[in-house]
Amino acid sequence: MKTSVAAMALALVLSLCLSLSFASRDVEEVGWRRGEEGRERWDEGRSSSEGGRPYHFGEESFREWTHSRHGQFKVLERFDHELLRGSVGDYRVACLDAAPRAFLQPSHYDADEVFYVKEGEGVLVLLRKGKRESFCVREGDVMVIPAGSIVYSANTHSSKWLRVVMLLNPVSTPGRFEEFFPVGGENPESFFSAFSDEVLQAAFNTRREEVVRVFERQSKGEISQASEEQIRELSRSCSRGGRGGGGGSGSSSEEIKPTSLPSQKPRYSNNHGRLHMITGNECRHLRDLDMEVGIANITRGSMIAPKYSTRATKIAVVVEGNGYFEMACPHKSDSGRSSERRGEHGREEEGEEKSRGYKQVRAQIKEGSVIVLPAGHPATFVAGNEGNLAVVCFGVGASNDEEVFLAGGNSLLKQLDAPAKTLLFGEQEREAADRVIGAQTESAFLRGPQQQRRGGVGVWEM
Amino acid sequence: MKTSVAAMALALVLSLCLSLSFASRDVEEVGWRRGEEGRERWDEGRSSSEGGRPYHFGEESFREWTHSRHGQFKVLERFDHELLRGSVGDYRVACLDAAPRAFLQPSHYDADEVFYVKEGEGVLVLLRKGKRESFCVREGDVMVIPAGSIVYSANTHSSKWLRVVMLLNPVSTPGRFEEFFPVGGENPESFFSAFSDEVLQAAFNTRREEVVRVFERQSKGEISQASEEQIRELSRSCSRGGRGGGGGSGSSSEEIKPTSLPSQKPRYSNNHGRLHMITGNECRHLRDLDMEVGIANITRGSMIAPKYSTRATKIAVVVEGNGYFEMACPHKSDSGRSSERRGEHGREEEGEEKSRGYKQVRAQIKEGSVIVLPAGHPATFVAGNEGNLAVVCFGVGASNDEEVFLAGGNSLLKQLDAPAKTLLFGEQEREAADRVIGAQTESAFLRGPQQQRRGGVGVWEM
Amino acid sequence: MKTSVAAMALALVLSLCLSLSFASRDVEEVGWRRGEEGRERWDEGRSSSEGGRPYHFGEESFREWTHSRHGQFKVLERFDHELLRGSVGDYRVACLDAAPRAFLQPSHYDADEVFYVKEGEGVLVLLRKGKRESFCVREGDVMVIPAGSIVYSANTHSSKWLRVVMLLNPVSTPGRFEEFFPVGGENPESFFSAFSDEVLQAAFNTRREEVVRVFERQSKGEISQASEEQIRELSRSCSRGGRGGGGGSGSSSEEIKPTSLPSQKPRYSNNHGRLHMITGNECRHLRDLDMEVGIANITRGSMIAPKYSTRATKIAVVVEGNGYFEMACPHKSDSGRSSERRGEHGREEEGEEKSRGYKQVRAQIKEGSVIVLPAGHPATFVAGNEGNLAVVCFGVGASNDEEVFLAGGNSLLKQLDAPAKTLLFGEQEREAADRVIGAQTESAFLRGPQQQRRGGVGVWEM
Repeated sequence: MKTSVAAMALALVLSLCLSLSFASRDVEEVGWRRGEEGRERWDEGRSSSEGGRPYHFGEESFREWTHSRHGQFKVLERFDHELLRGSVGDYRVACLDAAPRAFLQPSHYDADEVFYVKEGEGVLVLLRKGKRESFCVREGDVMVIPAGSIVYSANTHSSKWLRVVMLLNPVSTPGRFEEFFPVGGENPESFFSAFSDEVLQAAFNTRREEVVRVFERQSKGEISQASEEQIRELSRSCSRGGRGGGGGSGSSSEEIKPTSLPSQKPRYSNNHGRLHMITGNECRHLRDLDMEVGIANITRGSMIAPKYSTRATKIAVVVEGNGYFEMACPHKSDSGRSSERRGEHGREEEGEEKSRGYKQVRAQIKEGSVIVLPAGHPATFVAGNEGNLAVVCFGVGASNDEEVFLAGGNSLLKQLDAPAKTLLFGEQEREAADRVIGAQTESAFLRGPQQQRRGGVGVWEM
Repeated sequence: MKTSVAAMALALVLSLCLSLSFASRDVEEVGWRRGEEGRERWDEGRSSSEGGRPYHFGEESFREWTHSRHGQFKVLERFDHELLRGSVGDYRVACLDAAPRAFLQPSHYDADEVFYVKEGEGVLVLLRKGKRESFCVREGDVMVIPAGSIVYSANTHSSKWLRVVMLLNPVSTPGRFEEFFPVGGENPESFFSAFSDEVLQAAFNTRREEVVRVFERQSKGEISQASEEQIRELSRSCSRGGRGGGGGSGSSSEEIKPTSLPSQKPRYSNNHGRLHMITGNECRHLRDLDMEVGIANITRGSMIAPKYSTRATKIAVVVEGNGYFEMACPHKSDSGRSSERRGEHGREEEGEEKSRGYKQVRAQIKEGSVIVLPAGHPATFVAGNEGNLAVVCFGVGASNDEEVFLAGGNSLLKQLDAPAKTLLFGEQEREAADRVIGAQTESAFLRGPQQQRRGGVGVWEM
Repeated sequence: MKTSVAAMALALVLSLCLSLSFASRDVEEVGWRRGEEGRERWDEGRSSSEGGRPYHFGEESFREWTHSRHGQFKVLERFDHELLRGSVGDYRVACLDAAPRAFLQPSHYDADEVFYVKEGEGVLVLLRKGKRESFCVREGDVMVIPAGSIVYSANTHSSKWLRVVMLLNPVSTPGRFEEFFPVGGENPESFFSAFSDEVLQAAFNTRREEVVRVFERQSKGEISQASEEQIRELSRSCSRGGRGGGGGSGSSSEEIKPTSLPSQKPRYSNNHGRLHMITGNECRHLRDLDMEVGIANITRGSMIAPKYSTRATKIAVVVEGNGYFEMACPHKSDSGRSSERRGEHGREEEGEEKSRGYKQVRAQIKEGSVIVLPAGHPATFVAGNEGNLAVVCFGVGASNDEEVFLAGGNSLLKQLDAPAKTLLFGEQEREAADRVIGAQTESAFLRGPQQQRRGGVGVWEM
């Protein structure tokens, strides 16, 4: 009797375990955390106000695609979270670091590329439209490389690293891009290796062995190193683009060429920081991509006034310094029960509940951090005390975008008219409201929290 | 022995139940009906010809986002059905009802908004591009509010309600939008509450307590009430837009301003009804959104001739009266078996089977009903006998759209040439066909079914 | 005792089976193969280099939508594979074959259509914008039919078949389109049958029985046959479009009309083949659709030089002859383990792994084969020895597209500069590289593999 009961209990437990193990398999949704502990919520941060998830990405979110002692190429994981997918899910962020005199093998992407030179200098050669164009690029440059262009480049400096941040917009598959190498060996492989011998021989009108020897036996790796002489040869004919050799701001906006971002007249500029931007108005290729690029350079201890973009979602990459960011995100009500129903109905339940209040998204940031700032969401960046904080922002969906400041001399809230303020604050409080709205006279870049404190508690400047 | 068998049977049943309960969880597909009865088909209406599903939405499909005695704001559930998602899944319909002298707190959406004033009058203040613009709006007005504009408004009438219907096009997340309040308290909350004290103090150059007191302690609610004096103050400087104060039809199509829909020269007009439209040709902001807005005012007892749009999907909202609509929808063959295979293969099976015939989609409609009319689908609206039926149509994907009438004086079928008619109908039937195609001499708006009957059975006008 | 153990074992086995059967249901992902054998990988071709999957479609991938002895209309299955969905998932390929003197009933699609006349001649009548336009079409013609146009047509030849290949771009639901017949009977049904009697009577101002008799009792079928006399009548007023009757290349690019593809000045042309194209630059309707159409006519035994498109994805349909195609596709690393994790995390894992090398996608092709060539992917077509190979390419996402040849006189690799070649190949190998890159003097179309062999082993022309 006892044995039967025990045995049956065992049978029950066993079938329970089997069922559970299959149940934990059918969690297909994005947002559920990995693990065999069963169903657990991805971002516990939802109910708390801590954490930058899912808007903030640190080093651990990058995947190394290439690595050698001459450099590395890493790609940020896809923007697959449901809160990001709609606005930036198509794009990929990548970073290239090339050692002194590093040479990058020719290749093309099935993606458009917009890059910013974070540090160093180099030569970039584009093969497209049947021609070759060679560009000298340097720190601060922004440039568009159209999809399908064959590109090779080198770090022309003998001691500094060349570091580039880029945003890729894949042409075929949203969120995924591929790299195609014509010349290679073991790593990278040449795409010619995928063609049959007879096709190669006919295409090149050459015996197969020779074709293979030239295209498929070069094993220098994706990033190798050139001699000083070779670097000199490579960069001999590089230019800044534009007919007549002159580059920069005076040339046509139609051509592909590097443009110096810091050389653009700043949109805002004071002791606390500067913002430079290149938009579709200045560059036709950015307009075609519906993108813009900007750099916010925040003086140490200063901050950007809380603001939001009306249409563009910004993908911000910290290129220098450290600090933190804060953003206000509408707080979806806790949906413990509806998560179960979501298992049945996919996305149906979401978006039905009105959000209640806002939660703080905040994280410490440093060089290499990536932050996504959706349109309409108020946010701020604060520089640390050790040095300036420089943040490059790639804006997507940028056409007709406006920046709205919520505090400071150019705060849009200053446009509230008197009747509205009376209705909002009440007759008594109106004066206090006017004082608060008007107390900050700087615009865009302000004295930061730390700096405020140094002035002592209770001492506030007008 | 018996006990063992019984116990084992119990064990079996228990594990069966456990397995079933996990199996019913893995129904992730959209389109399956909610319920614990297991897998059941969403729209049984498919095999029958009854019902407006999934194209017709009644009051029960709206969710209240805000409600007070001074008004309510309700949002229609997402267009998540597989038959709608591709064409209108990005959009949301919403309705605002504001009591006399109601005041709506300033806020901005991360969505573009196109609205139609169904009833009443009000003042609408937009803060955008560093400026404030104040508009007087009234019944019949259509206006675009660009995403990210800070808006507040009031019902300027002392006894009439202000009722507005709007279509929202979210910028970031398809089908979902958020509202951001700068000033608030408990409800709504101010987004400033999501920022840390130190950031707020630095941003406003003011002690935290004062900032909080001004921005986060106002508890009037999203919709409150203003005094007559306050209403007068608010609406003092409102205009109809356009430099020189004049608004309406003569001004530039570039500006943001209200445009009176009934004041547009009607596209079609006779005793049985009128159709007014504003398209991207007249308004650059509608063109940017690839949208158009129209109102069909159908006299009591009359109807719109069956017609379809070549490219635009129409989201129709009944703003006055009642009646019914009919639409012809291609009938997907019953796919009981393929639904199981769909569980394995996602959407692969769908769309492979050619549709067989058409089924009738029909429903009674009244004020507040929402109907989606996909491009290419012939449909008609019939007004009831008590009064006129007025339907506002937001057309999405509207550029290059054409309206095709299938009956009446301007029916496209009248363009069939003689050889085609002979081939279609046969030599003998051609005369009958010509008679039938030509019998209705009115265009666009026709005498309705009820009115026909009043003329007596068998008596048909030429 | 024994019975208890046996019975328990049975219970365990039973619950195991039950759990397994529910587990196999929750495979919802696209890409998993059909079958009750449990979880198996869709394209085993991934780890091997054989097969054209998922880029190549043969006859078996078409579904017959209409079939009679007067003709057939078949539609290719949806481009639902994850590697295709992003670039061409919206589109559908279809083929029409009409017997001599076949007549196609009037209908409209909720999709734009671009077609190519593969063989024969016909008359095509468009009802749109309140007018009727009649076009004579013949072999080699390309034409756009805007969504919602009512179209009927006939094969005007008395002995030749009329064969047309088309690409459809649905307006409402990506990847799915519907056909609407105004006149019909049993098959096809008329969409008027979906309206109520009272609506029909009022709309046509005619008794229901007469309306039904005219519109719903014609049972000739979607494709019927006309007499010679009727064909003459139908084609009496057909034109080539353009005011003043003249068509072809000299007329306005704004109108809807057929354009002869072979009459366009070829982009490339030599003994081995010709490429003709019509792009958005020549035709405004193609520009609106962001599409282009081209035909590559490869002489027997010849080939196209390996090439890729920078932005456009090509949907290629073989309209004459046979041969084979080869394409280089980035090889995703074998992800047996990550497929399990994919079950938990949706698409998160994909795209994270960098592709390793390239695999060959290759398949024999013949008339009716469909091949998808994604942007950036190098590929080639080789004609067989029996006759020419003619391939029509519909390019989607075509604006600003460039074609890049990787071998031959116009190979982009010839633009590599000397320093780059030294770095790539090494000083010693540079000469060999120059030889290989320059050995093929023909451009675009080259002598094929078979022809090469006929010259004898070791004998290679310069």
